[in-house]
Amino acid sequence: MNCRVETKMDAFIFDLLPYAENIERFREGGVIPRLTKRYFNPEIAVRTYEEHLSAWAEAETLGFDGIAVNEHHGTPYGLMNSPNLLVASIAQRTKRMKILTYGNLLPIHEPLRLAEELAMLDCLSNGRLIAGIARGAPREYRVYNIPASESRARFEECYEIMQKAWTEESFSYEGKFHSYKDVAIWPRPVQQPHPPVWIPATGTRETIEWAAARNIGITPGVTRQGTVREDIIRHYAKCQAQHGRKVTPQHFNLMIDCYVADSKVQAVKEYAPYYVYFWNTLIRYDHEAADQQKGYYSASAHQHLRSGSTGTLASDKERPLSVGPSIESLRVQAEGMAWGTPDEVAERIIDEADEAGAHTVLLVCNRGALPQEMFLNQLRRIGKEVLPRLKAHKIAKVKFAEGVA
Amino acid sequence: MNCRVETKMDAFIFDLLPYAENIERFREGGVIPRLTKRYFNPEIAVRTYEEHLSAWAEAETLGFDGIAVNEHHGTPYGLMNSPNLLVASIAQRTKRMKILTYGNLLPIHEPLRLAEELAMLDCLSNGRLIAGIARGAPREYRVYNIPASESRARFEECYEIMQKAWTEESFSYEGKFHSYKDVAIWPRPVQQPHPPVWIPATGTRETIEWAAARNIGITPGVTRQGTVREDIIRHYAKCQAQHGRKVTPQHFNLMIDCYVADSKVQAVKEYAPYYVYFWNTLIRYDHEAADQQKGYYSASAHQHLRSGSTGTLASDKERPLSVGPSIESLRVQAEGMAWGTPDEVAERIIDEADEAGAHTVLLVCNRGALPQEMFLNQLRRIGKEVLPRLKAHKIAKVKFAEGVA
Repeated sequence: MNCRVETKMDAFIFDLLPYAENIERFREGGVIPRLTKRYFNPEIAVRTYEEHLSAWAEAETLGFDGIAVNEHHGTPYGLMNSPNLLVASIAQRTKRMKILTYGNLLPIHEPLRLAEELAMLDCLSNGRLIAGIARGAPREYRVYNIPASESRARFEECYEIMQKAWTEESFSYEGKFHSYKDVAIWPRPVQQPHPPVWIPATGTRETIEWAAARNIGITPGVTRQGTVREDIIRHYAKCQAQHGRKVTPQHFNLMIDCYVADSKVQAVKEYAPYYVYFWNTLIRYDHEAADQQKGYYSASAHQHLRSGSTGTLASDKERPLSVGPSIESLRVQAEGMAWGTPDEVAERIIDEADEAGAHTVLLVCNRGALPQEMFLNQLRRIGKEVLPRLKAHKIAKVKFAEGVA
Repeated sequence: MNCRVETKMDAFIFDLLPYAENIERFREGGVIPRLTKRYFNPEIAVRTYEEHLSAWAEAETLGFDGIAVNEHHGTPYGLMNSPNLLVASIAQRTKRMKILTYGNLLPIHEPLRLAEELAMLDCLSNGRLIAGIARGAPREYRVYNIPASESRARFEECYEIMQKAWTEESFSYEGKFHSYKDVAIWPRPVQQPHPPVWIPATGTRETIEWAAARNIGITPGVTRQGTVREDIIRHYAKCQAQHGRKVTPQHFNLMIDCYVADSKVQAVKEYAPYYVYFWNTLIRYDHEAADQQKGYYSASAHQHLRSGSTGTLASDKERPLSVGPSIESLRVQAEGMAWGTPDEVAERIIDEADEAGAHTVLLVCNRGALPQEMFLNQLRRIGKEVLPRLKAHKIAKVKFAEGVA
């Protein structure tokens, strides 16, 4: 964690890079089939990458502070099997923006190779990498044939190895899954002692405590609804305090859906079909049911949350994908969202960031494979009409952390 | 293997991407120490990457057919822990050139992840990837803590998995090292059924037979000296014939050192110090002795070579790095090399390609961390004064394969 003095908000664009063709056309008998070789059109994938990379390059000229990429496997939801290849690509088309992997899924990576790749990327981007990490959804474990029950142990071991590879003169390690003898990586990261690390904390106690112990920045909670975000921030602040540290807005970032139009009604009209497509089609594709997550969450994973909390990703009933939105439900839901006029969008984002005390927002404006002109139009409107207001705003304090001993 | 009709020669630039600072400055008591954290200067690494990437981008405008990158770990010899990150980078700065990984070291990769990365890279480059592969030197196995004796089995298993991931609708696999259940990767390669695969065949029988069985193109032998190259080509052609195929120049590529100057004397004067630095310092750094290669070569690995053959990489005595060159020895050696005037260089390259019947040459003109202006000057001289002659020449036949049943 770098604790910078400047506290004007930072705004990143978070992109899932969804496959550009609408996969609803493959639906048969009410079901999207397994998307095997025959469904894949390479021309569309080539175009998808090129469109998103050129949009990200434009994001830099529009003044955004960073771009965030992610890791998913075997799904049109996102064409980012390797976020690192996208970091390398966009580093060549930008000069200033931070580039955040959010995140490399540590338990399914070979730790030494990942440490080497991130070191290379920090050099290739001249120190612009933020090494976001995550455990990843159980579906990714199925693809890599790794038991979800090993997730926590693999996660911790992988991080420990990366840390050693980056910071020690040379290192040896005897782990449960990986061992190395006297390795000195070359090249090494530009940023010292290593690139900043961020992690999403969707609610699991162990992740919060692990991040707090290492002073790693977090994305507290999936949604603003309910009390989970507050409980996460309080627990994180309490753990940081046990290590003698006080949390600041620099410790927190939020992922916020936004869409700019001339009115909220217009925003819903334009964006809702794509948003519905994301939640009802793309993210549901090949996702595991809760009973396949066996061992992913510990028995005490949520004991820091107040009783009756909802909004974590842990139970199928509570997962956002269990009840997808409809155009109709979005008309209501949009009232509470950063969808609408530039003023409404900016106010909403600032209000949510103020509430959480989060210095950085990761803005998502293209969940469901927007046509390129709509995507670019959003980036331009957000960049020109919303971003200046965010960049003028200072997040002064972390109110949920106040009074934490 | 794509068997194109056009047979005018192709010329690639093969670059090792050596760390720009001369590591001789670290020598103490006659020995280069282990290059741990304290020796690494990130500014130099940042500059090294930027210089080489801009040189490769210029190679496209100069008319070269491709760029070749490679994989090495923990050494200033080459900053390419992940060749794939370099493919992603240069794909963004070029439009036409082929991009060859030469090669991804299969035994130390997670096969599914590698298949996914190469599929992404084929999309990111719009079908310009050549997926070169290799077993890698024993030193890389030490870094990854994988027994050299498992090299062959891991290599074959990794390739089989990649092949299935690329070409089958979805695949399952139960291997000795890796197993997967019902995986359908997304995205998939642009080139069908998958990107061309090339492999260096430095002499080992199993590699030649493996490549021939799959109609995979090879780099026959390390050097033109002796009879090893001829024996490799003959054995490969014989094995291809057993599968009902006749070899063509498209099956072969050669790696050739070249350096253009106004005279051979001038070439030696300018380039020899860097060439000596490569062979006597860079490649010797942290390299394994022959006795640490245990199990890397099978007992019958060289039985297809005529008795008394030298010039494979198998025995320490015969390895090119056992006796490094000196400025003096290079004055003599250069007589037989593609160093000198543009005419001499072009003639020498064409003569060697004609002899082997190799359609593609991988030109190496920057072994020992040339200053950037020298590197660019070489690319420009080779591009303007040598390349047109190569591009006008047609490799008509594979003479060593003639008469092979």
